[in-house]
Amino acid sequence: MVTTELAELGPLPATWTRRHLLGLEELAAEEITLILDKADVFKRALEERLTRFPLLSGKTCVNLFFENSTRTRTSFGLAARRLGADVVDFSAATSSLSKGETVIDTAKNIEAMGVDVVVVRHRTPGTPHLLAQNLGCSVINAGDGPHEHPTQGLLDILTIRQRRGCVEGLTVALIGDIAHSRTARSNIWGLKKLGAHVIVCGPSTLVSPRWQELGVEHAYSLDEILPRVDVLNLLRIQFERQYTRPFPSVREYALLYAMNRERLARSKPDILILAPGPINRGVEVTPDVADGPHSAILEQVTNGLAVRMAVLWLLAGTRE
Amino acid sequence: MVTTELAELGPLPATWTRRHLLGLEELAAEEITLILDKADVFKRALEERLTRFPLLSGKTCVNLFFENSTRTRTSFGLAARRLGADVVDFSAATSSLSKGETVIDTAKNIEAMGVDVVVVRHRTPGTPHLLAQNLGCSVINAGDGPHEHPTQGLLDILTIRQRRGCVEGLTVALIGDIAHSRTARSNIWGLKKLGAHVIVCGPSTLVSPRWQELGVEHAYSLDEILPRVDVLNLLRIQFERQYTRPFPSVREYALLYAMNRERLARSKPDILILAPGPINRGVEVTPDVADGPHSAILEQVTNGLAVRMAVLWLLAGTRE
Amino acid sequence: MVTTELAELGPLPATWTRRHLLGLEELAAEEITLILDKADVFKRALEERLTRFPLLSGKTCVNLFFENSTRTRTSFGLAARRLGADVVDFSAATSSLSKGETVIDTAKNIEAMGVDVVVVRHRTPGTPHLLAQNLGCSVINAGDGPHEHPTQGLLDILTIRQRRGCVEGLTVALIGDIAHSRTARSNIWGLKKLGAHVIVCGPSTLVSPRWQELGVEHAYSLDEILPRVDVLNLLRIQFERQYTRPFPSVREYALLYAMNRERLARSKPDILILAPGPINRGVEVTPDVADGPHSAILEQVTNGLAVRMAVLWLLAGTRE
Repeated sequence: MVTTELAELGPLPATWTRRHLLGLEELAAEEITLILDKADVFKRALEERLTRFPLLSGKTCVNLFFENSTRTRTSFGLAARRLGADVVDFSAATSSLSKGETVIDTAKNIEAMGVDVVVVRHRTPGTPHLLAQNLGCSVINAGDGPHEHPTQGLLDILTIRQRRGCVEGLTVALIGDIAHSRTARSNIWGLKKLGAHVIVCGPSTLVSPRWQELGVEHAYSLDEILPRVDVLNLLRIQFERQYTRPFPSVREYALLYAMNRERLARSKPDILILAPGPINRGVEVTPDVADGPHSAILEQVTNGLAVRMAVLWLLAGTRE
Repeated sequence: MVTTELAELGPLPATWTRRHLLGLEELAAEEITLILDKADVFKRALEERLTRFPLLSGKTCVNLFFENSTRTRTSFGLAARRLGADVVDFSAATSSLSKGETVIDTAKNIEAMGVDVVVVRHRTPGTPHLLAQNLGCSVINAGDGPHEHPTQGLLDILTIRQRRGCVEGLTVALIGDIAHSRTARSNIWGLKKLGAHVIVCGPSTLVSPRWQELGVEHAYSLDEILPRVDVLNLLRIQFERQYTRPFPSVREYALLYAMNRERLARSKPDILILAPGPINRGVEVTPDVADGPHSAILEQVTNGLAVRMAVLWLLAGTRE
Repeated sequence: MVTTELAELGPLPATWTRRHLLGLEELAAEEITLILDKADVFKRALEERLTRFPLLSGKTCVNLFFENSTRTRTSFGLAARRLGADVVDFSAATSSLSKGETVIDTAKNIEAMGVDVVVVRHRTPGTPHLLAQNLGCSVINAGDGPHEHPTQGLLDILTIRQRRGCVEGLTVALIGDIAHSRTARSNIWGLKKLGAHVIVCGPSTLVSPRWQELGVEHAYSLDEILPRVDVLNLLRIQFERQYTRPFPSVREYALLYAMNRERLARSKPDILILAPGPINRGVEVTPDVADGPHSAILEQVTNGLAVRMAVLWLLAGTRE
């Protein structure tokens, strides 16, 4: 049996009792660690080119994406298929929303077709929570406006843990568009719970002192904090989520915040560089750094698959 | 074997000889009853969380949708996958129609890829019949303009039969946009054949005395017919299928035809309320009624899956 | 086992060493013949209604289409699924390209999800070659601008070989829009290598004497070359790839180049007529000829599936 190759995975842990993954804010450190541990097992299995694990055989997983997405939707789809689940894709363009139906009615209709997991992305914060309250199946938040994107946070933290052994005691700086970033929020909640020191850093239009309320340090100058940073997470400039241009020009942004060879020389020698794709080459990071040994950008993609397999299994796996 | 769990289903019945499902008009009462009986078996299997029945293993089912659709396309796709078939989706946006090809050429090309069933939706009445004449594979009508939508009719009737035990002798009222509704036509044919009394009721711009030619009663006032109705089927106002606005305002329509608490109080105590989604809350039905005990709206969705599994199996199942 | 039914197929041939299929220009005649031989085996299996061959079980195939496509994308998708692979579809509309990412970054991200084969279509010639240089997985060119479309060339040549027994010594005329046609280029390379005489024929705005550099004859009059042609390949007028109208009117084009009953009467009695769909009925070919006994248009579609199964197996099959 294929499953014997996953003997390491063990049965569904009794300590995991959640039915939904809505955000990292509500998870305990132990729950985050459990997901990361299971993701590590799936990652190793993927590296050995094992690709089929019939842990969700006969289950159905729906991608309910009200915003366009390439990689997150595909990553969830592949993760579900590799666990043996059926996958159904909805996108805003072909959904019934254009016919005046409410989000809850759309989701309830989908659930009535016998669905086990709904993976939802929506521009309105709280939409996944609304669905979790109204549906009998599991709900995974794949991004709710600028609020949370928990599997992105988890895959970033998994990548840090794999490269550095542990997260506790590290200084992690999130750079750039903090204000509009669900990735920032999910990273902050997860990293803090695991004992990292977090700095949010960017232009004052995108980073305010109020972020200190979340227990993080804030800074405006990348060059000032650079010498004491262990991990840099270069957030994407989310042009599509901004109503006014928050800085004079892309060139000026790159001058102050792009990670390049010169800044790399002034960093700790083992600095780790993350970036949730798609990256704007020359804006958040220069090509030589993006493709260099400090970058873990493509590992993040592979870890995304492993994290999503772990989450899907924990939420929808069958207890013996 | 999974199939033993479907022992109730039996072999493909010798009395079923059709290769296509184009409409309910041409079906005999016995054929409709046979589909409903088999759908009941699939429904019970789904309720026991059995989700895989390899009855169409190795077959390929194509969704050829020239009009946007969320639930019908997904319902057919899930039904086919649960029977073990491969599913391929076409939609107008990505099809070759924009390159000047005829519908028949598109369908013949798809068939030449080794397809077993084509599920087609098209704005032109008769398109499924045209394909049935020109293709060697099975054709299912998933809606041809305002003409027929047989699986919608079947799932409505299945829901009535499940809730009321039988259809014969019931008074079923179809409310609202009769003129543009393929659901109305399929319901009328199916309900009449099974012995129900059918009333079509709506504003005079959407219901004309000519409907009497189909053997149904027509009415303009919901309040007048309400006391003698057993089942209400609240058709969607199909704004997208209308060239001129058929009533002064949505508010006026709702005043005259929306099913609400006050009208419910004047209905038979066991009145059953159906609505093919997506529903416009506050237009055809108020939220309290839509979510109340008389409503079977979400059961209709589950029954849709069961009916489509039954139809796919009857048309494309392998005779031993 | 299902695979015993494919005993004829044999193990992966040691003579096949390629990891990518980028064009027919770089293939040796023996390699083309090998693909066609294996495609013949798959074709026969499909005709016996064998539809599942778990030769790529556990592998993942991505359709990365930056241009719209119905049949090529579907044909690759069905071919991969029938070999047991998972299939993921990307299209330009939902891809991250709109977010300013490079094609290579998009492809590398997809590859990092554990993909085995990328099937790519892009308007820029050379895009598949660029990906092949930058990815660790297999790359198949599904059309790069006007450059090559190797599986279309292979399926055309397979159809000729099946109908006429061999390709060597035949006179094959490509008619119409040569200038913008990747199908023309792939046919020319493949047919020449297998020993056919190739004529390109069309209006002088679409066929120039420079095509002689590829070792083919060029002609402007279909009627002049018709008596000595064994195979006619009626290329689609690619209105979507033209910047200026290359002939006065569609009617004038049809008058000079459409294959019709009258021209058929002046052809060799066993002339074979191919056309890569979607065909413009009445432009490149009249309906009676398209649907007549000399036409192999629908066989081409079935052969496309067989060719793509052969190519996918040769590139991504597991060597024992």
